Amino acid sequence: MSDEKLILVTNDDGYDSKGIRALAEVAVNYGRVVVLAPSKQQSAKGHSITLGKPLRLKKVNDFDDIGVEAAYSCSGLPVDCVKIAVGHILDRQPDLCLSGINHGSNSATNIVYSGTMAAATEAALSDIYSIGFSLMNFDPDCNMEEAKKTVDWVLQRVIKEKDQKAKLLNVNIPDISFDKIRGVKVCRQGNAKWKEAFVERVDPFGHKYYWLTGFFEHKGGHEESDIHALQQGYVSIVPAVIDRTHYDDLNTLRNNWTGLS
Amino acid sequence: MSDEKLILVTNDDGYDSKGIRALAEVAVNYGRVVVLAPSKQQSAKGHSITLGKPLRLKKVNDFDDIGVEAAYSCSGLPVDCVKIAVGHILDRQPDLCLSGINHGSNSATNIVYSGTMAAATEAALSDIYSIGFSLMNFDPDCNMEEAKKTVDWVLQRVIKEKDQKAKLLNVNIPDISFDKIRGVKVCRQGNAKWKEAFVERVDPFGHKYYWLTGFFEHKGGHEESDIHALQQGYVSIVPAVIDRTHYDDLNTLRNNWTGLS
Repeated sequence: MSDEKLILVTNDDGYDSKGIRALAEVAVNYGRVVVLAPSKQQSAKGHSITLGKPLRLKKVNDFDDIGVEAAYSCSGLPVDCVKIAVGHILDRQPDLCLSGINHGSNSATNIVYSGTMAAATEAALSDIYSIGFSLMNFDPDCNMEEAKKTVDWVLQRVIKEKDQKAKLLNVNIPDISFDKIRGVKVCRQGNAKWKEAFVERVDPFGHKYYWLTGFFEHKGGHEESDIHALQQGYVSIVPAVIDRTHYDDLNTLRNNWTGLS
Repeated sequence: MSDEKLILVTNDDGYDSKGIRALAEVAVNYGRVVVLAPSKQQSAKGHSITLGKPLRLKKVNDFDDIGVEAAYSCSGLPVDCVKIAVGHILDRQPDLCLSGINHGSNSATNIVYSGTMAAATEAALSDIYSIGFSLMNFDPDCNMEEAKKTVDWVLQRVIKEKDQKAKLLNVNIPDISFDKIRGVKVCRQGNAKWKEAFVERVDPFGHKYYWLTGFFEHKGGHEESDIHALQQGYVSIVPAVIDRTHYDDLNTLRNNWTGLS
């Protein structure tokens, strides 16, 4: 990282959410901050991008009072925001990309659906140190003051990590006061999934339609998982990969399949 | 896998694409096949899901002539298709989920954007053996006959893999005749990214808008990468992870950060 940090702040809940404002409020203590975030709620959009239609950007002044250098809302998705920030708006490659603070957990396998983590992942693909922050509270009006202290705790350590390669971190924060948090744990991704239940209804014209509902099912038990840490009242940090190769399966296939080159 | 296989076939190009028909034509030789795929093109939608609005399903007869048991188009995204198939439509957990044949490559880091691979990943989250197939030809009218032979080659081996745990495979197929293919290689994910260039325009009302364009930049060189294999005329198979924990970074953070629990 260079000495004067350039920090891109984005999210998936939209530029006007409480979470991104809280994140920017902490980030300004660590460098020049540019906010570029979706113009509206874009949760669960995963690593979706906008193809075949143009993006619109709008300068917004919502962050002027906290010392953010520039802020934009974008008509696109979280990943679009990172692409246009890094590829067109910022004057140089940022040192950090911070995404969040998401309103709701992104622990365990939720990383695959999360727009928050998709934005962070997109920046990491450009070798930018990237961190997604999520608070375990889905209420858009929830209090973010305590979560800011965890963000600050993490950024203090990241800023000191000179000469190390960029990482991609998934940080989840229990919705309790900072002094009640038992600590910060570096974890592995928990093994859980959404167990779907579709509610089938019939419209006034006799046609069926389906509502996706479901609950988050913990598949059980690794003591080192983020789910376990969060349940115990710790902040969880899962370092995530860009290279999704499954090296064990790679070896299994090479050993067991016939006719490979 | 059970003896009578149940195979879910889906994609991101839509139920009426040539690629999914080709895939179903091969799949019917290996078990009962149900097709459930988006009603329209849903490329680059990553692991996006439909929240807050209902899904519609429509029975279609496009696959009746090739022996598919049932086929549906779905108003939602590729991941929605897998969720509603597994969670509501199929009479039991399928033995295999096949996604594609995608019109265009999903090699290297394209896995993060790909709807084809998102659908396969969603099924893998439910412990279903899942394979995404992609042909390196973006033309919706391209010939899929040769690619079918690679699909068949892979399925022959997967079907024989009794008593092994489910895997998630990303298969990319060069757009050449099967007898010209030099072989099949099990690879690691190539290190590449889309290098963005945004075209800035001004609308008739004086407002700027931006088109995302770009080119795929190979960051260089691993001999074992899928990019390298494809360039050499091989079919590439990358086994992919569900657990995205970066274990090296996990250890680095635990060793270097202060104040961890």
